[in-house]
Amino acid sequence: MMRQGSCHCVTVHQHQSLASQTLSCKEDDDMTGEEVKSMQKEYSLQSWSKQKGLNPIPVEKGEGIYFWDYEGNRYTDMSAQLVNMNVGFGNKAINDAIKEQVDKFCYAAPSYAVEARAKLAKKIIELMPDNMGKVFFTNAGAEANENAVKMARMYTGRFKIFSRYRSYHGSSFGAGNLTGEPRRYPLEPGIPGFVKFFDPYIYREAVPFESEEAATKYYIAKLREQILYEGPNSVAAIVIETITGSNGVLIPPKGYLPGMRALCDEFGILLICDEVMAGWGRTGKMFAFENFDIKPDIVTFAKGVTCGYVPLGGVVVSKKIAEYFDDNLLSCGLTYSGHPLACAAGVACVNYYEEVNILEHVNEVGEVLGEKLEELKAAHSCVGDVRYIGLFSAVELVKDKTTKEALVPYGKDPEGTMGKILGKLKERKFMTYTHENMILIAPPLIITKEQILEELEKLDEVLSIVDKEFI
Amino acid sequence: MMRQGSCHCVTVHQHQSLASQTLSCKEDDDMTGEEVKSMQKEYSLQSWSKQKGLNPIPVEKGEGIYFWDYEGNRYTDMSAQLVNMNVGFGNKAINDAIKEQVDKFCYAAPSYAVEARAKLAKKIIELMPDNMGKVFFTNAGAEANENAVKMARMYTGRFKIFSRYRSYHGSSFGAGNLTGEPRRYPLEPGIPGFVKFFDPYIYREAVPFESEEAATKYYIAKLREQILYEGPNSVAAIVIETITGSNGVLIPPKGYLPGMRALCDEFGILLICDEVMAGWGRTGKMFAFENFDIKPDIVTFAKGVTCGYVPLGGVVVSKKIAEYFDDNLLSCGLTYSGHPLACAAGVACVNYYEEVNILEHVNEVGEVLGEKLEELKAAHSCVGDVRYIGLFSAVELVKDKTTKEALVPYGKDPEGTMGKILGKLKERKFMTYTHENMILIAPPLIITKEQILEELEKLDEVLSIVDKEFI
Repeated sequence: MMRQGSCHCVTVHQHQSLASQTLSCKEDDDMTGEEVKSMQKEYSLQSWSKQKGLNPIPVEKGEGIYFWDYEGNRYTDMSAQLVNMNVGFGNKAINDAIKEQVDKFCYAAPSYAVEARAKLAKKIIELMPDNMGKVFFTNAGAEANENAVKMARMYTGRFKIFSRYRSYHGSSFGAGNLTGEPRRYPLEPGIPGFVKFFDPYIYREAVPFESEEAATKYYIAKLREQILYEGPNSVAAIVIETITGSNGVLIPPKGYLPGMRALCDEFGILLICDEVMAGWGRTGKMFAFENFDIKPDIVTFAKGVTCGYVPLGGVVVSKKIAEYFDDNLLSCGLTYSGHPLACAAGVACVNYYEEVNILEHVNEVGEVLGEKLEELKAAHSCVGDVRYIGLFSAVELVKDKTTKEALVPYGKDPEGTMGKILGKLKERKFMTYTHENMILIAPPLIITKEQILEELEKLDEVLSIVDKEFI
Repeated sequence: MMRQGSCHCVTVHQHQSLASQTLSCKEDDDMTGEEVKSMQKEYSLQSWSKQKGLNPIPVEKGEGIYFWDYEGNRYTDMSAQLVNMNVGFGNKAINDAIKEQVDKFCYAAPSYAVEARAKLAKKIIELMPDNMGKVFFTNAGAEANENAVKMARMYTGRFKIFSRYRSYHGSSFGAGNLTGEPRRYPLEPGIPGFVKFFDPYIYREAVPFESEEAATKYYIAKLREQILYEGPNSVAAIVIETITGSNGVLIPPKGYLPGMRALCDEFGILLICDEVMAGWGRTGKMFAFENFDIKPDIVTFAKGVTCGYVPLGGVVVSKKIAEYFDDNLLSCGLTYSGHPLACAAGVACVNYYEEVNILEHVNEVGEVLGEKLEELKAAHSCVGDVRYIGLFSAVELVKDKTTKEALVPYGKDPEGTMGKILGKLKERKFMTYTHENMILIAPPLIITKEQILEELEKLDEVLSIVDKEFI
């Protein structure tokens, strides 16, 4: 049944006495890009795709905001991969920290104390508002949200969880049931007690609001009404992406988050901010909720904590919640909670943010990004809306600026229009991703003003093509 | 709101021109073990625990089956941490592979082709039976099971999922709803369509069977009956730990798995083998299902694929299922699917298994383990049953061998008896974990005969204390 390798083999016993030597039985390492691509396609399944016809670029190396294929073509990473590689490729501080931890040990179970784990937890709590108490580490964002929901249920003794349409919180069953867009459907019939409400999407609201204040008033009143109809005493938590990410960088209107915070306080509901995408400097603050003057009860994070150099996520809970678990069983766990290698990468990464004053930089470059996006909106008939904060932005494409008819209908793209637009960007080595009728622009946070202007010229060109050929 | 570090800072711009230098702003690295422990306790939440009174050993270094605290005490890892560190601490081949990948790049999104990702997928498929087609990579075991269930539902168009009591498949909502023991409770009310059936636990069956064959006949007949009553056309998959792990190393009786395979074939149900714990050589075969002459439709794996050096898991699907996703959307995805650093560690790890002939070694040492466990069972009145295969084993403790009354009642341990027994082992630097009334023994697969005999003497001593003081 098994096809064995043809290596020269030694026994474990022999090997233990050869501990200082490297055993080597490598395959030929001189693979071409085509070989890498075809091997990956033959043996693995790619996320969120029909597998036929996939054509993944084989990545040979990367540096900063750029990466190269095996033929020497250079691409610019304008989405920080999946909005996680804030520091870009090849950050030496993180690389060195990983290697240093490898030389100590790669792993110890969560029941042991580990220096990197302790230091990162301390570092994160120090960056949080003073109401926050402890961190529970996970592998990534979906599991952070899974565990946040579990903790909220345990702490409150309630079982309903509110989350929003248009949100994305992950694709595992718990996180996916929080998710308010089509990536939730394969998980249905859903988990009892997961309730959806509408997010503020002012650009496309059925009846336009007179002002931002009027919008906030409306959304908060509707949310209060829905809580009352669901039964406030059964609602454990409201889970939100502080700023909705992949679904279009939807920035909450003024007063909305404080209004939600007040509702939570009124009814004893926990406010859980999912900062997986928006956290770690992306918006020009270390965490996105700082833009809105609120203190969450629980914060989930991932991506930017290690920039994906090693997978890591986590849940930060308030002091009150942390204290509850002093005497009550925390019924959460995973093999790699607080993985030492990941935590070592995290310590180096967070230190790096501080050392290079990343927030100041994001705000400076973000201003340029915002100005340029406004120019694109003014210049192109296909651009209905641009939304931006820090280095987190989306360009929403329309057939008609006045009617706001989306370039492609919701949940469909029968002619592959968005794929074609992405192709035009890719021809120019401008790499990002789209969602529905939107293009996400969220480059590594280390991008310079010069670099962003250079790249946005490419976007300008492509939007001119869209103006002419797609609307 | 933010407490900033007091480091000397440089700008991103300055830093980019200093790319080859290491920025350093470390805290004092000379922490004592006590400091590490108290910092970790102050700022982080530990899995599956009440936080008050935790006393985690701070790990300073490890080598092979041993690790050391900051005071130089040496401990033996008799559970391979969480049954994941098959190669023990400090495996040079894996360490080197991680460093080598760090020097290329740590991360690229799943939509790019990456050499380590392609190679590991190929390697895994080559180790699988010839019906298997492609791998979908995840961060770890829970997410592997989450995605296996999603794929089974998509492929079959059915929504019910059978899994077993006493199983553990993870603690996120999907994996946790598969789980058939108390770690599922915090996830209730559960996900519609998740159905539990009883596993074969012959030692404790309400009415004893005449033979192993009789047991198999009974369990398969009951399972068939339950499928009929649930409605075969609504059942997408049966998910099993091929050999139940943490819940007591429950080894299926002869004919049981082929019987289940036949039921699956009869009703068009997919058989999903969770090999997260039992896979990668643990049982003396590369995968546990090879002990029982069956071919699953889907296999989930994690732990031993990298030994936890970098978090990694995955789902292997049959060629038929893989083909289905050629033209149908695979609605699964996660930021770190096929993480390059993890895959590089995986390639090195799997190559290592082959290079040192790990299976031969496990079978040799496993024989010694089995013999010794039988001796312990014969010698100690507190040992009701021992179960073992390869280097995967459990010792089940009873108050009375004849009545089989468990040493502690199910789901409770009011006097902390099992904790006290674990304490006696820990005094002897024999580190493992217990579950209900059972002690798990699952050391790194590289353990030698001499080492295992030395360690089991400590267990022998402790069981003598249990004989005298606890029953």
